[in-house]
Amino acid sequence: MTTVRTRVAIIGAGPAGLLLAHLLDRAGIESVVIDQRSREEIESTIRAGILEQSTVELLDSSGASPRVLSEGNRHEGIELRFAGEGHRIDFADLVDRAVWLFPQHEVLKDLIAVRLTAGQDLRFGITASRVEDENPAHPKVIATDAEGQPLTIEADFVVGADGSRSVARAAVSGSATGGYFREYPFAWFGILCEAPPSSEELIYSNSDKGFALISQRSATVQRMYFQCAPETDPTAFSEAELWEHLQARVPGTTLTEGPIFQRDVLRFRSFVAHELRKNRVALIGDAAHTVPPTGAKGMNLAIADVVLLEKALRALLLENDDRLIDAYAEKALQRIWKAQHFSWWMTSMLHVAPDASDFDRRRQLGELRSVVESKAGQTYLAEAYTGWPHQP
Amino acid sequence: MTTVRTRVAIIGAGPAGLLLAHLLDRAGIESVVIDQRSREEIESTIRAGILEQSTVELLDSSGASPRVLSEGNRHEGIELRFAGEGHRIDFADLVDRAVWLFPQHEVLKDLIAVRLTAGQDLRFGITASRVEDENPAHPKVIATDAEGQPLTIEADFVVGADGSRSVARAAVSGSATGGYFREYPFAWFGILCEAPPSSEELIYSNSDKGFALISQRSATVQRMYFQCAPETDPTAFSEAELWEHLQARVPGTTLTEGPIFQRDVLRFRSFVAHELRKNRVALIGDAAHTVPPTGAKGMNLAIADVVLLEKALRALLLENDDRLIDAYAEKALQRIWKAQHFSWWMTSMLHVAPDASDFDRRRQLGELRSVVESKAGQTYLAEAYTGWPHQP
Repeated sequence: MTTVRTRVAIIGAGPAGLLLAHLLDRAGIESVVIDQRSREEIESTIRAGILEQSTVELLDSSGASPRVLSEGNRHEGIELRFAGEGHRIDFADLVDRAVWLFPQHEVLKDLIAVRLTAGQDLRFGITASRVEDENPAHPKVIATDAEGQPLTIEADFVVGADGSRSVARAAVSGSATGGYFREYPFAWFGILCEAPPSSEELIYSNSDKGFALISQRSATVQRMYFQCAPETDPTAFSEAELWEHLQARVPGTTLTEGPIFQRDVLRFRSFVAHELRKNRVALIGDAAHTVPPTGAKGMNLAIADVVLLEKALRALLLENDDRLIDAYAEKALQRIWKAQHFSWWMTSMLHVAPDASDFDRRRQLGELRSVVESKAGQTYLAEAYTGWPHQP
Repeated sequence: MTTVRTRVAIIGAGPAGLLLAHLLDRAGIESVVIDQRSREEIESTIRAGILEQSTVELLDSSGASPRVLSEGNRHEGIELRFAGEGHRIDFADLVDRAVWLFPQHEVLKDLIAVRLTAGQDLRFGITASRVEDENPAHPKVIATDAEGQPLTIEADFVVGADGSRSVARAAVSGSATGGYFREYPFAWFGILCEAPPSSEELIYSNSDKGFALISQRSATVQRMYFQCAPETDPTAFSEAELWEHLQARVPGTTLTEGPIFQRDVLRFRSFVAHELRKNRVALIGDAAHTVPPTGAKGMNLAIADVVLLEKALRALLLENDDRLIDAYAEKALQRIWKAQHFSWWMTSMLHVAPDASDFDRRRQLGELRSVVESKAGQTYLAEAYTGWPHQP
């Protein structure tokens, strides 16, 4: 059995785990990052792509993603469309902030390259099975390498950045699945297609047929979604049917069509773990919370966890000061529940629930009208969408 | 059979019907107002008491309520309380507007006195049974007087201001009950008690035990409510139990207690009639819509209907111009659905639904925190609470 010693063991080489390792390194704190996936798999999995302003500033200023500003696309607004009319939410005018469209796997390519260049101990193909904290001051990650050989990482602190199926969660909250849940009666059918953008900015469209999101990936590739039943089979529709479904949900815009080369069904789920920290084990990112994608908060919320936890680990490991780590869960949860609310709000305001009554549908249109007719309403939405500033 | 001829027949001597008659008279348009209740009953029924700024301005400037400014209490804010902490929403600072606390039956006393002094044909104890519009240019109200004698009112226009059990609705939407509905799984237990105010401003309190509203009526009488099950029997609690229920829902404030001399259970219901006008019959106020009381919109929304309809009737009856009456329903519905949304929002943000999960409860607290931590969020709420301006 191989045993590795480090200060911080990080399970999961997603954006949260890798950024944490990066920031810790800058503070002189050594870490080991493991992930059960291969580097290729991590770098090619298509995920969300909207980064809040504070996320971008941190990725750029810390050197974690050298390309985020040069290759990301700054978006100064989104369009809310309903009752056949578009209403632009002008972030620059309302809150003097913006978001960036830069796909998560591009952030990951940068983070992995930066970490490996810096000599980070970053191991792919390592499957963690559990976190042990029998000695609370020196928790361990019990894992298996790609060849099936056991690997133990002994650390001063273990971080579960291992996604929604976190194995670290059991050590923190006493149960692998324990948490606060909400399911939604719909999902997103997502496509990638080879065609130039149909719109320069994202269009969030509420229509009688359901929700659609018209997004972009690059000058030649579009990402689009439409509301579907959760059990929808991704292969159930022909390309012509997919275009018909999308087009019907954005009346007023003619979508540019092109070959569809990827299709997937994204389930909607809200989750917050019962506990975010126990002794010297903490959760960040999807291991701690899942949000439905409508508010574009997933990766940004993970980064906000990192900001809090990194500061707490510096105090704990460099100065033996445990006040910030003791406050980590409560502080993180304040933002998490606001983000859960925002994600639920955007989801419920824009989707048509299958059991919605005629009253519900008209009230929803009354809500959308209330927001777009009020500068305060638009500002409230823009503040949340572009992201509440990280606490200093 | 007695037949009366007038230009506008108004069923219902509530605030909407009486104010409409008042404004029409000022424009030189004669009307007859009937109500099945006695004057004493109308003047003594305790109803809501929050008036939007535009409502107060209209009641005052039109001479409809000479006492509203001198006897009403100007409130420049409310308190939202949750998680044991109070957060003031400062209307004056946020939107430079206010609301007035002046009970509806006081408005009605003024309106009835003003109308009778002006020679208004205002008849109590008259029960309308239906509206006939076989001749669409001359609709009729078919009614019975207090002695059971038939009475017919022939008019150029009939207005149903006859509340949630409107008999005019059938002539407009083809069905006495047809509309968009929403029921809520809770009600308000309301009390009136002899004691000085516990708070200078209204407190909207969300607590783990449910919602409470601490309100005022005068220097010596308080009006308070707490969330209860819809089927609650008003006699089910002792006075001591009522104080216990109320106090438990506003931790942090010591309620001033006194003899409880009225108790009632208010059911929660949202309703919008399918149609608001057909030919020369239109609905205003509760005949057109019901809102749950949390947003204090009921009477204010009725007044907003009156503003639109009075202008439309002037154009129609004085200038034979039917453009405004043709647009009445659509214009009124824009405000109605925004108000329905606001009422639903305040209700769902502040009450604890009996089937709320732990996730829902924490999301709700995240929502409340999002609103009070954001000046834009507070402003969005304050704009709606103090009332969107009437259209010029």
